[in-house]
Amino acid sequence: MKKILVIHGPNLNMLGIRNKKVYGDITLETIDKMVKQKGKELGIEVETFQSNYEGDIIDKIHIAKDYYDGVIINPGAYTHYSIAIRDALEILDIPIIEVHLTNIYKREEFRQKSVIAPVCTGQICGLGYLGYIMAIESIYEIIIGGGKFYD
Amino acid sequence: MKKILVIHGPNLNMLGIRNKKVYGDITLETIDKMVKQKGKELGIEVETFQSNYEGDIIDKIHIAKDYYDGVIINPGAYTHYSIAIRDALEILDIPIIEVHLTNIYKREEFRQKSVIAPVCTGQICGLGYLGYIMAIESIYEIIIGGGKFYD
Amino acid sequence: MKKILVIHGPNLNMLGIRNKKVYGDITLETIDKMVKQKGKELGIEVETFQSNYEGDIIDKIHIAKDYYDGVIINPGAYTHYSIAIRDALEILDIPIIEVHLTNIYKREEFRQKSVIAPVCTGQICGLGYLGYIMAIESIYEIIIGGGKFYD
Amino acid sequence: MKKILVIHGPNLNMLGIRNKKVYGDITLETIDKMVKQKGKELGIEVETFQSNYEGDIIDKIHIAKDYYDGVIINPGAYTHYSIAIRDALEILDIPIIEVHLTNIYKREEFRQKSVIAPVCTGQICGLGYLGYIMAIESIYEIIIGGGKFYD
Amino acid sequence: MKKILVIHGPNLNMLGIRNKKVYGDITLETIDKMVKQKGKELGIEVETFQSNYEGDIIDKIHIAKDYYDGVIINPGAYTHYSIAIRDALEILDIPIIEVHLTNIYKREEFRQKSVIAPVCTGQICGLGYLGYIMAIESIYEIIIGGGKFYD
Amino acid sequence: MKKILVIHGPNLNMLGIRNKKVYGDITLETIDKMVKQKGKELGIEVETFQSNYEGDIIDKIHIAKDYYDGVIINPGAYTHYSIAIRDALEILDIPIIEVHLTNIYKREEFRQKSVIAPVCTGQICGLGYLGYIMAIESIYEIIIGGGKFYD
Amino acid sequence: MKKILVIHGPNLNMLGIRNKKVYGDITLETIDKMVKQKGKELGIEVETFQSNYEGDIIDKIHIAKDYYDGVIINPGAYTHYSIAIRDALEILDIPIIEVHLTNIYKREEFRQKSVIAPVCTGQICGLGYLGYIMAIESIYEIIIGGGKFYD
Amino acid sequence: MKKILVIHGPNLNMLGIRNKKVYGDITLETIDKMVKQKGKELGIEVETFQSNYEGDIIDKIHIAKDYYDGVIINPGAYTHYSIAIRDALEILDIPIIEVHLTNIYKREEFRQKSVIAPVCTGQICGLGYLGYIMAIESIYEIIIGGGKFYD
Amino acid sequence: MKKILVIHGPNLNMLGIRNKKVYGDITLETIDKMVKQKGKELGIEVETFQSNYEGDIIDKIHIAKDYYDGVIINPGAYTHYSIAIRDALEILDIPIIEVHLTNIYKREEFRQKSVIAPVCTGQICGLGYLGYIMAIESIYEIIIGGGKFYD
Amino acid sequence: MKKILVIHGPNLNMLGIRNKKVYGDITLETIDKMVKQKGKELGIEVETFQSNYEGDIIDKIHIAKDYYDGVIINPGAYTHYSIAIRDALEILDIPIIEVHLTNIYKREEFRQKSVIAPVCTGQICGLGYLGYIMAIESIYEIIIGGGKFYD
Amino acid sequence: MKKILVIHGPNLNMLGIRNKKVYGDITLETIDKMVKQKGKELGIEVETFQSNYEGDIIDKIHIAKDYYDGVIINPGAYTHYSIAIRDALEILDIPIIEVHLTNIYKREEFRQKSVIAPVCTGQICGLGYLGYIMAIESIYEIIIGGGKFYD
Amino acid sequence: MKKILVIHGPNLNMLGIRNKKVYGDITLETIDKMVKQKGKELGIEVETFQSNYEGDIIDKIHIAKDYYDGVIINPGAYTHYSIAIRDALEILDIPIIEVHLTNIYKREEFRQKSVIAPVCTGQICGLGYLGYIMAIESIYEIIIGGGKFYD
Repeated sequence: MKKILVIHGPNLNMLGIRNKKVYGDITLETIDKMVKQKGKELGIEVETFQSNYEGDIIDKIHIAKDYYDGVIINPGAYTHYSIAIRDALEILDIPIIEVHLTNIYKREEFRQKSVIAPVCTGQICGLGYLGYIMAIESIYEIIIGGGKFYD
Repeated sequence: MKKILVIHGPNLNMLGIRNKKVYGDITLETIDKMVKQKGKELGIEVETFQSNYEGDIIDKIHIAKDYYDGVIINPGAYTHYSIAIRDALEILDIPIIEVHLTNIYKREEFRQKSVIAPVCTGQICGLGYLGYIMAIESIYEIIIGGGKFYD
Repeated sequence: MKKILVIHGPNLNMLGIRNKKVYGDITLETIDKMVKQKGKELGIEVETFQSNYEGDIIDKIHIAKDYYDGVIINPGAYTHYSIAIRDALEILDIPIIEVHLTNIYKREEFRQKSVIAPVCTGQICGLGYLGYIMAIESIYEIIIGGGKFYD
Repeated sequence: MKKILVIHGPNLNMLGIRNKKVYGDITLETIDKMVKQKGKELGIEVETFQSNYEGDIIDKIHIAKDYYDGVIINPGAYTHYSIAIRDALEILDIPIIEVHLTNIYKREEFRQKSVIAPVCTGQICGLGYLGYIMAIESIYEIIIGGGKFYD
Repeated sequence: MKKILVIHGPNLNMLGIRNKKVYGDITLETIDKMVKQKGKELGIEVETFQSNYEGDIIDKIHIAKDYYDGVIINPGAYTHYSIAIRDALEILDIPIIEVHLTNIYKREEFRQKSVIAPVCTGQICGLGYLGYIMAIESIYEIIIGGGKFYD
Repeated sequence: MKKILVIHGPNLNMLGIRNKKVYGDITLETIDKMVKQKGKELGIEVETFQSNYEGDIIDKIHIAKDYYDGVIINPGAYTHYSIAIRDALEILDIPIIEVHLTNIYKREEFRQKSVIAPVCTGQICGLGYLGYIMAIESIYEIIIGGGKFYD
Repeated sequence: MKKILVIHGPNLNMLGIRNKKVYGDITLETIDKMVKQKGKELGIEVETFQSNYEGDIIDKIHIAKDYYDGVIINPGAYTHYSIAIRDALEILDIPIIEVHLTNIYKREEFRQKSVIAPVCTGQICGLGYLGYIMAIESIYEIIIGGGKFYD
Repeated sequence: MKKILVIHGPNLNMLGIRNKKVYGDITLETIDKMVKQKGKELGIEVETFQSNYEGDIIDKIHIAKDYYDGVIINPGAYTHYSIAIRDALEILDIPIIEVHLTNIYKREEFRQKSVIAPVCTGQICGLGYLGYIMAIESIYEIIIGGGKFYD
Repeated sequence: MKKILVIHGPNLNMLGIRNKKVYGDITLETIDKMVKQKGKELGIEVETFQSNYEGDIIDKIHIAKDYYDGVIINPGAYTHYSIAIRDALEILDIPIIEVHLTNIYKREEFRQKSVIAPVCTGQICGLGYLGYIMAIESIYEIIIGGGKFYD
Repeated sequence: MKKILVIHGPNLNMLGIRNKKVYGDITLETIDKMVKQKGKELGIEVETFQSNYEGDIIDKIHIAKDYYDGVIINPGAYTHYSIAIRDALEILDIPIIEVHLTNIYKREEFRQKSVIAPVCTGQICGLGYLGYIMAIESIYEIIIGGGKFYD
Repeated sequence: MKKILVIHGPNLNMLGIRNKKVYGDITLETIDKMVKQKGKELGIEVETFQSNYEGDIIDKIHIAKDYYDGVIINPGAYTHYSIAIRDALEILDIPIIEVHLTNIYKREEFRQKSVIAPVCTGQICGLGYLGYIMAIESIYEIIIGGGKFYD
Repeated sequence: MKKILVIHGPNLNMLGIRNKKVYGDITLETIDKMVKQKGKELGIEVETFQSNYEGDIIDKIHIAKDYYDGVIINPGAYTHYSIAIRDALEILDIPIIEVHLTNIYKREEFRQKSVIAPVCTGQICGLGYLGYIMAIESIYEIIIGGGKFYD
């Protein structure tokens, strides 16, 4: 059975607990349930992981290759400066999709640059939790389709 | 019945006809068929449109609001400088998803800046024609879900 | 009888029809009537023209010299990048006034640079439709006064 | 009776006295007479003021609110760096129009940036002394019209 | 018989008609005659095309490949920002020579950057109409020589 | 009899001897023979000169005016920083054509800026040794035509 | 009883132990005692925390809201790039004061930019350990005063 | 008896009189009373001074050394460009604290750079009038403590 | 009798009184005596003037033309931003020499840019008080020589 | 016996295990053996350490001074942004050599800037595992030679 | 017998003769003896060369390929701008090591950029004359090892 | 007897021979005579030197210290990029004055930056040949006065 790893970066554990006006009511727990449910529908296993530690995320990515067929990552604030996470992802040779809940291109100047993007297969942003669902579907299609895509 | 407009910018009419090594075998005609088929599955009408003229695309966007419930746009090279298209999109108050076949963040410096992105709901890039399918699904979910999303 | 050409750039045809909160209730039709009325008061003919096509605007400017005594242009989004329109205007040797409804220097960074300005006689911005009226009066004064102005 | 204050910044007192080739024959005294005459025609009082001192101009602006219904300012060289004058103007809640005799966008790079512009209602430049007349008319229209303008 | 397409961008239709002091007496019509005459001497057919529309130029380039053996393009002001024309040219696999009447490196800063250059075979500038003649000769040599050139 | 000086900058003496994959088989000696042959056909004398020393090239340019009717220069790497060579060329009042074997606008960022270009009549690049031939022809035309060219 | 959390970022644990010439004799232990003593005088509890781990600091901030009434943070080197810590602080809705022992605006260019500052209530720098004492007093005043402050 | 000079820069005389929504109800007069009261509690004399003239502030700083033991300065808008005030402050060899009512790092880009900061002992910002009180206390501690501080 | 005006900008009145380690023992009074003595030797009258007020310096420059044959100015910190002083100097048509006691090109980045320099005849820096003497001599030579100099 | 600490930053644990085409066959384990072997030959003890955690590396550096006579560090991706590691290294007063397996100046723009370099004794890059051996030898020479080196 | 060429750039001939405080006592002659001695130990011939002429260094590099098995170069000030030397080095296909006596990343901004580095195998800096010895050893290892290194 | 060396950089040998409109009638020979005459008057020997070779100028500077008491240098175009000449000058510990015939701050952007200035005692520009005379006098005063100058 195919397996997908979903990585949530720093502060995403606070989703839906606080600052509901800004981040909405949805919690990370709910998102994790939804992506797992989506995986179940598609017949693939989805594992989720969250950490506020850059090193922790790197360690997790290192073990991803032997155990997973795809990675979905929302690197949170590390998006903008963690070349270390970028380097870890670059080692993988499975599909990687970068997801952002918000449209980062509508936000502060410094949030519009992702150092992670150049090593990912693709990016989905601005679609809220839907972005994760779409990423699961996309990885599924890529794995099934055997990578027969433009680019 | 809900309707979605898919806009393809300059040079996308050449997809799959030439430079197959770079752009793959798929033609714009095939993509258009696929998105329409996807629409049919979801019970929504999908119309497609391609032009190499900036003014033509602006005109089309202007009439989009009264006739469509969502817009998907791959602005091609206009992504990087057409503030006029941006302004046209900004007038709309329906979901807009920017799609790029390739991961623009892997390419030349000047392709990594989208002047369109800040007025769109979200962006999907790097997933080839799958990006269009995911965009259709997303707009569908947003329309059905009534916009209940984070952002 | 002296003649003035008023050119409206992309998206200005949408004025007052949509997004009234941002752009107010006034339509381009109303503005056109007002500038023509002003022209009648001053005894000069005022013609108006709107297009979303860069090439269309260039064509119009090319024929302006032989038929008009002054040009008023609100280049819309083309203000910020259309060197082609700039080059077309540079060919003329009649007074040209650039008009913007809003004060572009209060807006996004990219709207604060006009590539058109260096080839115009002057610029009026931030005064809403009044800007057009003032531009008509100014061209009138310049034509009558025979260009006896500083600069 | 409505009152408008016209402020001339540094070096404008030398207008028409020296460097006639560059600045023309017109003196500041003549301009002041013209704007006052224009005011008389419109039934409003126009007061003029010139100083080479940044602090002096700030002091004048501070007392403007209680005594004037509009301000016209040609900040001269202070246009490009006096954030202090900008802050003083920002305190006012009456219409402010920035005027420049020359088209500053045709001149040296450093003259193309106005730190004053973002706190003004609008800007008129490149029309010589006509700019002041147009500014008087515009403020008159805004006061009479009750601020019913787009922006 | 070999065929070469010569494309003239925006405002080049005004050559020699106006502003003779700057652009000289030569008209586009004369240049077109000269390049065709040169073609005749070399035994190749030369077709010319001018448009002020970006989309029009793109359309023309798209059909170039099947009908021409080389392209000469003076993109006018589009030189400096039309990534869309660049992308259209990039599709071709025939020799492309960019020509400018003036030495663009002597002019304004913004004219010294060509976004078109990186997808062309070579560039000739500053030689007036001679540039077109040299470009015709060069394409002829490249076609005849079978591309046996350095680079 | 008219005389043209062809100057080759640093490292061009290594052409065709080494790195044939990058620079092709052609040697500087061959290029020099070809340009001299071309000169003979046109009835003008062509002299060639190569040096790796900036000072040497400057000395050569200083004596060019009294003995030559035109200069063709491929400044090699000095293109990008030798203001001293630029200043030497600026003294001349004969036609100067800058030639580059490769299209420098396709290469590294630092190679896309020529400090020499603003003091030359024109520039030809990307056409391999053909560029030299075209430059000879152009200078010939300019000398014969008496400088009757646009710009 | 009100509680304040004092967070010390990376390398601050080395204070006073080494490099006494640069950092003085005072140790972090002493500073911690002083701020606690100050808290005692004001009748509030002060807790201190130091870590060299970005993730550790983020975790601590996450739990701050439910247990503290104010946060004082000296982010050390993370001041200049940890957007992740910035995002964690932004979640809080209690007063936050950024403290630096040295005047960072006297130091290297890269130390003069704080990515943390925009999400803090205020900043105190250059006053050595006094800065912490002043921060304690300020938070005390803000809590007691009920936030009745300008800004 | 020790003496401290508090300098308020341009526009601070308008505090609390106008724009209460932005600047709060507190007037400069009240702040001056509070800092003097604070001085009385600590047994030091506090003098205050406000001017909108750069030259005036410089004159005042020049005489500060012989008469004061510390300077607190809120340079207002001069913070961002008055190198002249910076140079005047640099002459002093007594403690100088820069105070800003608002957190300047939350505001416009140009307000985030202080040219004054590098010549001050420290900076306090974002704490409203409390900032002045804290500055008085800090200078008091530094004078009493004899400068025994880190940095 | 010919007359030269020497203008000293802000903070130069503090020369030699304080900070002797940095600025040396010489006072402005001594410099003024020396330049006057030098003038006496050359048979010209030298007047000196110092002010910390930008407006004051501008006023002085305005009256310089009718009364002086040359101006020597050390604009102090205003060197780096006072476009208003630059504009005042630009009005004059007599020789102007900018003098700096120190070599400003050895100092902070922001001190290496003079906005005054482009409107002066020449600049002398880094020679201490000698710079003023050399400037007096130079103006003398220029006046006597009747401007027969290169550039 | 002298001791040297070798620190390997993030992702270096993956060396030789994956991506052999890029990173070669050599594993970190092998490199560690080699440097220890080299140490043995020179009569010094070499300890190695790898972590993906920034905080972990800082902790290790803090304890380095009391236990080691030199540090060799390959900071991996942290090279480019970890000011925190830089600050930790700055505390040490023993020789520090920065090593990179690849020539970072041949790679992406962002890899060409090391924030670590300014606090190290020297840097060796581009020599693969040899770099570590050379670093061991160098530290040995410096320790033995007593630091008698130029710099 | 293998041969290595050591090239010293401009001003290195002055090493140890003057400015001993900055550059130490060691002369270039001593360094040359040491590298030759090192070569002798390893059984390879080491030749040294110094010149202040850019052209001279280029000439030397051109003849290096046929006579040497490796190059060590300390380009002195040419490091920062000599693209001509870079191009010369790029022709070689033998190992090249760039050496700097000082750690150039601790020095002025302009010394931190090497235009030479991208065409070298590796770089050693900050280790004084040891850097040359290490470079000799490294080239020896690379030649003997047959280039079996990572990168 | 004291000796001063005057160095003229590239292209200065062409002074007065060509381009008289720009550079005036004066030749380098005349300037050299004048500075020698001035030296004679002051009782010091003045030697002059011109070269277009960077290496040549460096060689000359190297031998300057033992034979001269001061250096005057007009580095011509090398002013703007020759870090090698800068490094050579930095070795000297005698007064160095940089002279430019024209006011380089009135010219092209790239001529306004001197990489030489930071290692010179002072700079004189814009005074034509007078600049050399003033430089001779200044060095004379500095040598006689024993360096008792502010700086």
